Amino acid sequence: MAPVGRPRSDASHAAILKATYELLREEGLARLTLDKVATRAGASRSTLYRWWPSRGAIAMEATLDMLNRELSLEPKGDNALAEFRRLLKSVARAMRGSTGPIMAGILAECQRDPETLRLFKENLVAPRRAEVVPLLERGIQDGSIRPGVAPHTILDLTFGAIYHQLLLHVPTDDAWMDGVIDILVNGIAAKPAA
Amino acid sequence: MAPVGRPRSDASHAAILKATYELLREEGLARLTLDKVATRAGASRSTLYRWWPSRGAIAMEATLDMLNRELSLEPKGDNALAEFRRLLKSVARAMRGSTGPIMAGILAECQRDPETLRLFKENLVAPRRAEVVPLLERGIQDGSIRPGVAPHTILDLTFGAIYHQLLLHVPTDDAWMDGVIDILVNGIAAKPAA
Repeated sequence: MAPVGRPRSDASHAAILKATYELLREEGLARLTLDKVATRAGASRSTLYRWWPSRGAIAMEATLDMLNRELSLEPKGDNALAEFRRLLKSVARAMRGSTGPIMAGILAECQRDPETLRLFKENLVAPRRAEVVPLLERGIQDGSIRPGVAPHTILDLTFGAIYHQLLLHVPTDDAWMDGVIDILVNGIAAKPAA
Repeated sequence: MAPVGRPRSDASHAAILKATYELLREEGLARLTLDKVATRAGASRSTLYRWWPSRGAIAMEATLDMLNRELSLEPKGDNALAEFRRLLKSVARAMRGSTGPIMAGILAECQRDPETLRLFKENLVAPRRAEVVPLLERGIQDGSIRPGVAPHTILDLTFGAIYHQLLLHVPTDDAWMDGVIDILVNGIAAKPAA
């Protein structure tokens, strides 16, 4: 998210995101206020209100900050399908623990506040897809993924399955994620794995 | 949902659900109150409060009532995979129009109110799955679905993809649903369709 107004001090910026993430984990997004964040971070309320327009905006930035540390797409020279499988596992892992319920809270806030939805799509969905869609396109090139499947539809299914469990508060484990990956990979593989 | 308290008059019950659905369509669940429903339906507030514990509960019943009229699983003697494909199309169709955004609102309310989540799982998720899981099991029996796939995981992917579009406010069309079905059916088919 682009900083607004005067440049932020890196230290206080980090302290504010940390305080936000802690409050999200403890109480959830529905109970978050910018005032609580200011108190917890020892920052002034006016600073907070100058930098973030809403609780949705600050929650999104704190969550992105956390996700970017937890998720990374490091190419290992596998074919694209194998790389995609590794990525799915790391997403599922990141959604266990406290980040999962926070994501469910953000998705709920997106239904109440169109601005939070806009930030979610712009700052979270679009950049992730900009990384993964080329990987899937490479899979069609390298022959590991059959032609004719739309990369975006693969991602709607992938993230959809994860959101589904988060929203219904069903814990996911490796066996569940393996089952999801098995169906998806069989569904898109150029040569059936079965 | 089992009626609570004295038996409801069918006419006023139907009028209340109709008023609820109209309000959900017009203003969304976040703005719904039992008082507004009482006024719109010409019912007494005390009746409403006696029958439904929360806006989540009445929204769920009104939505279920609508969905049960829109969705039906009529066997046509196809193999189970073909029947499943038909069912997915009818779910996707039902989620277009006004029911989709209402479902997104209910999923959001489930994050705020554990009782709404409980009702959602008990009255919507569980009965649907009780219909569809045997269909998928029959598919494994009749050889159209490969053994080893978990019916519940197929449904997590299916409904997940639909929830994903609803929550991100991305309209779905037949081409998108065909793409989803193509991946899922290839992913679970005993003999690859590709």
